[in-house]
Amino acid sequence: MFKVIGLDADDTLWENEIFYRRGRKLFNHLLSSYPVDVDVETFVHNLEIQNLDTYGYGAAGFVLSLIEAADALTKSRFSSQDTVRLIDHLKVMLSTKVQLLEGASGLVATLAEMHRLVLITKGDLRHQRLKVDDSGLAGYFERVEIVSEKSPDVYSRIIADCGIDPGDFLMVGNSLRSDILPVLEIDAWAIYVPNELTWSHETLEDLPLHEPRFAEAATLNDVPGLVEALEAQDE
Amino acid sequence: MFKVIGLDADDTLWENEIFYRRGRKLFNHLLSSYPVDVDVETFVHNLEIQNLDTYGYGAAGFVLSLIEAADALTKSRFSSQDTVRLIDHLKVMLSTKVQLLEGASGLVATLAEMHRLVLITKGDLRHQRLKVDDSGLAGYFERVEIVSEKSPDVYSRIIADCGIDPGDFLMVGNSLRSDILPVLEIDAWAIYVPNELTWSHETLEDLPLHEPRFAEAATLNDVPGLVEALEAQDE
Repeated sequence: MFKVIGLDADDTLWENEIFYRRGRKLFNHLLSSYPVDVDVETFVHNLEIQNLDTYGYGAAGFVLSLIEAADALTKSRFSSQDTVRLIDHLKVMLSTKVQLLEGASGLVATLAEMHRLVLITKGDLRHQRLKVDDSGLAGYFERVEIVSEKSPDVYSRIIADCGIDPGDFLMVGNSLRSDILPVLEIDAWAIYVPNELTWSHETLEDLPLHEPRFAEAATLNDVPGLVEALEAQDE
Repeated sequence: MFKVIGLDADDTLWENEIFYRRGRKLFNHLLSSYPVDVDVETFVHNLEIQNLDTYGYGAAGFVLSLIEAADALTKSRFSSQDTVRLIDHLKVMLSTKVQLLEGASGLVATLAEMHRLVLITKGDLRHQRLKVDDSGLAGYFERVEIVSEKSPDVYSRIIADCGIDPGDFLMVGNSLRSDILPVLEIDAWAIYVPNELTWSHETLEDLPLHEPRFAEAATLNDVPGLVEALEAQDE
């Protein structure tokens, strides 16, 4: 039996990407008042990836990249008022109440009956902490780990802090890049719960279908059954 | 003897506020091209404090507040180019190498000889982590705690994680509000090392001169002697 189950938060337990999509929609709407002659989608995506190293993950870096993109795309004609509308959207993102995904609270309660749980989420420290507190789920987790990158090393550190071996750890999340592949790399287990709204950056990789320590859940409701199936396989 | 010594980082071990001052200087310079009829200093300070709840501490929130202030102060005439100059300054802040304060590495090495050390810093998770790594001091600390607020509860949690009692914990830092008062409130010990460049928000409080578990160091070099003096007093 797994000793500790790690759960991702954004787009696994609660909505996140949807607020980024709304920001992009507002951005496209504002830009439509300016003559722009390059492909906006590609330009913004490339700038976001380029800035990731500087800003890290999170809403503030996202909106800062949009403001920078707006200046470049409009040849510095983007108005101060429109810039403030982007900042206002950031404030909405940072203060919006958590919207749990269907089945999230049931899943956490079910898993907590038999397992120690750790929430592992990346991004802005303050924003993630607020979301955890607002979710009403914090009490189910023995630890909340807010990290700036989900690398194999980071997972190894968390697993060591829990006092267990990687083989006794299972991670559940919607991002192949962050929740699944680094976990499999250190010989722990992973259940992938795809979310139709996942940032493309997080889903670039191929499914690790050859991995025996991997399973894919169609919905959150399927996770407990898959946990049992993987546990049976481990025996 | 104290079992664990906590050290603040920004403006205690390395330069921080100086980069904010430079950002404000750039901001004032950019604003000087626009007609502005209110007190800029007060307006910006109030907006920063007002936004603290949304952005938390850190360089990104600081620059976002400057951009918002620029729009308000110039009645939406602030140019997109000038906005990008503020964003460029943010990128410099986020990528600047750590500049250790005089005596910082000697102090940490000296304290580490006799005590377990914990680095406790607030602000942006990714930026703080980069600074810790860049400082070359990470190896002296058994834990690095990056928190979004330094409250008595947060200190209590860290002290509990170290497996000690508050009476066995001493904190060293430059902020009365963040490093000293919350620590004294939970009956731990504190040494205040004032830095001439400390954000006014952090120094609003009166010195707790009546507190027996408190001392003030004129420089970092005076800290080890004061640690010994407080330890003698504790016996």
